[in-house]
Amino acid sequence: MTFALFLPSTSIESVGANSIPLILYLSGLTCTDENVCQKGYPFPHCASNGIAFLAPDTSPRGAGIEGEDDGWQFGTGAGFYCDATEAPYATNYNMYSYIVDELLSFVSGEYPALASDRVSIMGHSMGGMGALQIALKNPALFKSVSCFAPLANPTKSELARNAFTKYLGSDESLWQQYDPCSVVGTSEANYDNILIDVGDKDDFANDGTLKVENFVEAAKAANKKVTLNVREGYDHAYWFVSSFMKDHIDFHATRL
Amino acid sequence: MTFALFLPSTSIESVGANSIPLILYLSGLTCTDENVCQKGYPFPHCASNGIAFLAPDTSPRGAGIEGEDDGWQFGTGAGFYCDATEAPYATNYNMYSYIVDELLSFVSGEYPALASDRVSIMGHSMGGMGALQIALKNPALFKSVSCFAPLANPTKSELARNAFTKYLGSDESLWQQYDPCSVVGTSEANYDNILIDVGDKDDFANDGTLKVENFVEAAKAANKKVTLNVREGYDHAYWFVSSFMKDHIDFHATRL
Repeated sequence: MTFALFLPSTSIESVGANSIPLILYLSGLTCTDENVCQKGYPFPHCASNGIAFLAPDTSPRGAGIEGEDDGWQFGTGAGFYCDATEAPYATNYNMYSYIVDELLSFVSGEYPALASDRVSIMGHSMGGMGALQIALKNPALFKSVSCFAPLANPTKSELARNAFTKYLGSDESLWQQYDPCSVVGTSEANYDNILIDVGDKDDFANDGTLKVENFVEAAKAANKKVTLNVREGYDHAYWFVSSFMKDHIDFHATRL
Repeated sequence: MTFALFLPSTSIESVGANSIPLILYLSGLTCTDENVCQKGYPFPHCASNGIAFLAPDTSPRGAGIEGEDDGWQFGTGAGFYCDATEAPYATNYNMYSYIVDELLSFVSGEYPALASDRVSIMGHSMGGMGALQIALKNPALFKSVSCFAPLANPTKSELARNAFTKYLGSDESLWQQYDPCSVVGTSEANYDNILIDVGDKDDFANDGTLKVENFVEAAKAANKKVTLNVREGYDHAYWFVSSFMKDHIDFHATRL
């Protein structure tokens, strides 16, 4: 598994172990670890705040499963941050465990200057879905959570339903553990705020794929505070992500 | 010919004709109009200064000349901002005239809000070579000039010599009109400063391809002021460009 890690150079030489806070960024469908680094422009804002930035890939690569490269909505580049239970995906497609159990501890081991107890999580689209459900289920791991245009209610979106059927089987009750709208209702997380930005020209929002409003409602019902910013003129692309990256990094910086 | 144009939205609705200053950005070998837009991160800095940003392609595309797609150092993506005189390139490969005579007047005609008398020029690598020689020969067109890691003395670099031989023939005296080191000696331009940044880990600088020091010397001999910033740890890539883009846009903003 490939990941990209940005370390703030102003900090790395002068600090001891367990000193540099970290933002974990989960990308959307089709992305690798590189897209947000090249087009999202997180590094200057992380550098000025002395924060590290970790961008994992979005799926296994080259698992050799028939059909895994056939479409952009499933398989390679489309791990959906869940642990597959169905053959032949269960062996490799375990992005939930990879993010929660392996990646953070591996990176902290390799880079002891990272402060493993000061980590925030954010994501875009499918990665926004991942950031929300992972943060809400693992409040001990993260200081804060935010996202851009999240796939917020995936069990109600065709895009994710097709993937969940293949990864998790047809019993929809098993899908709920990865749906932010379900998870938020039972979450014991106590984040002071959950920051979400979405563009009003986002085709995936406007065709009903994202269903951000469902998450806002579910969070309200669960007494979790959400700030939703609808950004005029922006769509789903990295122009949107890079335009509001500073806001999100600042949001996490004050909580790290 | 394709180009990218960024217009600052805060200005476009409130201003009249001939109101928005413009930075013309010339990219390096292999680039299209898109690379600097996606990886150079110019737009926020242009937006905050109320400046438009124009990024043309680096060569004709699809001219149908045999061999034009064979390498990255010649032909498609490698126009070298000159007007070819040799067959079969003379028909299409006329990037100098395109930039100086066609592009700015076309864009001003299509977007009357642009201030055609407040234009600056900058570039990267091969585009830095283009920006320097074009600005030095056409001081009436530009308020200021800057570049990242320019190919500063192309008649002495194998990279450009091969291209010049094919575009311009073997008479090297004809090449000098496109070499910043030659042009600066006869230029009547009176720019108050020429800003150049280059990384100390730039492979093209360190293998003698760029020869930035030759331009600094030639400019000094011609009584033209140059500020050269050597940036520790940076190489030739867009990480370097995006890291110092704000400095360069601010440099032009104070002169526009």
